[in-house]
Amino acid sequence: MKIGFQGERGAYSEIAAKRIYGEKIRTVPLPSFEQVFEKVDDGSLSCGIVPLENSLAGSILQNYDLLLRHKLSIVAEVSQRITHNLIVHPGCRFADLREVHSHPQALMQCEKFLSRCPSLHKVPSYDTAGAVKWIKENKLHHAAAIASTWAAELYDMQVLQQGIESDPENYTRFVVLRRHPRPSKNAKKTSIVFSLRSVPGALFKSLSVFALRDIDLLKIESRPLHGKPWEYFFYVDFSGNTSDPNCRNALNHLTEISTFLRVLGSY
Amino acid sequence: MKIGFQGERGAYSEIAAKRIYGEKIRTVPLPSFEQVFEKVDDGSLSCGIVPLENSLAGSILQNYDLLLRHKLSIVAEVSQRITHNLIVHPGCRFADLREVHSHPQALMQCEKFLSRCPSLHKVPSYDTAGAVKWIKENKLHHAAAIASTWAAELYDMQVLQQGIESDPENYTRFVVLRRHPRPSKNAKKTSIVFSLRSVPGALFKSLSVFALRDIDLLKIESRPLHGKPWEYFFYVDFSGNTSDPNCRNALNHLTEISTFLRVLGSY
Repeated sequence: MKIGFQGERGAYSEIAAKRIYGEKIRTVPLPSFEQVFEKVDDGSLSCGIVPLENSLAGSILQNYDLLLRHKLSIVAEVSQRITHNLIVHPGCRFADLREVHSHPQALMQCEKFLSRCPSLHKVPSYDTAGAVKWIKENKLHHAAAIASTWAAELYDMQVLQQGIESDPENYTRFVVLRRHPRPSKNAKKTSIVFSLRSVPGALFKSLSVFALRDIDLLKIESRPLHGKPWEYFFYVDFSGNTSDPNCRNALNHLTEISTFLRVLGSY
Repeated sequence: MKIGFQGERGAYSEIAAKRIYGEKIRTVPLPSFEQVFEKVDDGSLSCGIVPLENSLAGSILQNYDLLLRHKLSIVAEVSQRITHNLIVHPGCRFADLREVHSHPQALMQCEKFLSRCPSLHKVPSYDTAGAVKWIKENKLHHAAAIASTWAAELYDMQVLQQGIESDPENYTRFVVLRRHPRPSKNAKKTSIVFSLRSVPGALFKSLSVFALRDIDLLKIESRPLHGKPWEYFFYVDFSGNTSDPNCRNALNHLTEISTFLRVLGSY
């Protein structure tokens, strides 16, 4: 089994994949989320892992759009605690530093720490682990990267300061994607996407199919419906399994009132 | 009256401000959305204009978060058609071009056009009009910018090709912010933000306060509640005016079941 992820080795996505499937799984670094979806879609990888949501920054909207464009199934999820670390070349001291490289999101999440070091110039990078690789390969001894401790180990770099994130309640929810669903009786959660006629009360009616059956809604996300300004696709996560009759009835009911409905997975 | 906007002169936000208040309004360019909110909050500007949503890219999440952090009121909105243009130094020909500069969102929205010009290297810029200013001031005769025709006029540059966006259904919804609300009997729309107890059926109950009174929901957006992973603030737009008793009753009802509620404005 080979699992694709976006970023360089040591990325939080790779750590999440190993937490689900163990250390021995073969992980494949890819340059973009789009490529993760494409390689699973065309069968060159058996599965892929992508972040869907961070507890501070919110939804990763691009991946919601990619879920709709590719017909893959969500088969598992994991919530990964994100701890950011200041990583430097071995022997580097804080006083040597003039730059700090990382993904813009990670730089933002370490804002409190960085505001106490105004002399550090922030350099955006496309990836946290990629920033460690970059300062390593380019021998930037005046630069630090912000990434996981595992990225520091992988590239033989040194953690100068651990846990520099502003808010410790920093979690990212990753999902595993496959081409074909694997029905699981133990699945506790189902994700769907649907669209509605643009009529008063439509969203309320669509959510009533769950409330009327005591099914708990866990998340709702809306994304623009291209070609119809100010109309939306709704992405809903709810408690339950599509093999459970109560959930099946709710989905059948939703089919009656929606213009489009797809189950993204039970996991 | 002075209205602040993010970006350089010629930005789509400035065009939207002039569409609402006329050509004679004094507009103030600012480097960030945060500064637009801050300058209105501290009274140094009477109002500000920010984009909240694009019909292709979706919500501008940062501005939703800033709405919560600053206690400003939405007093007006305008939906602005976005047309992107390829802008160059006067006399420049297409064959001279090696680079194209613009905001990453604008580059993405012109993907179809740009995919037919693979020799053009894409250079991200923090602002569309700012990209025109940049190639002008730096005399980059081998570079084009993507921005409004108005930005081309302002900086005495030339539109080489008009309307290069991939999807013509490209609109951005801008809102005007003030420190103090201005109750208007003509307001047709109200925006609120609220949070709920994390119990089954909570979201459904909160939307029922509108459905039970035949009030039409126009938009729902969820943003993470910091410190409580996987709980959310809900931003809802609905048809109606807070001075209308039916809407006031709905909001009183929502107060009963929410843990937090703020009216962002009727406009």
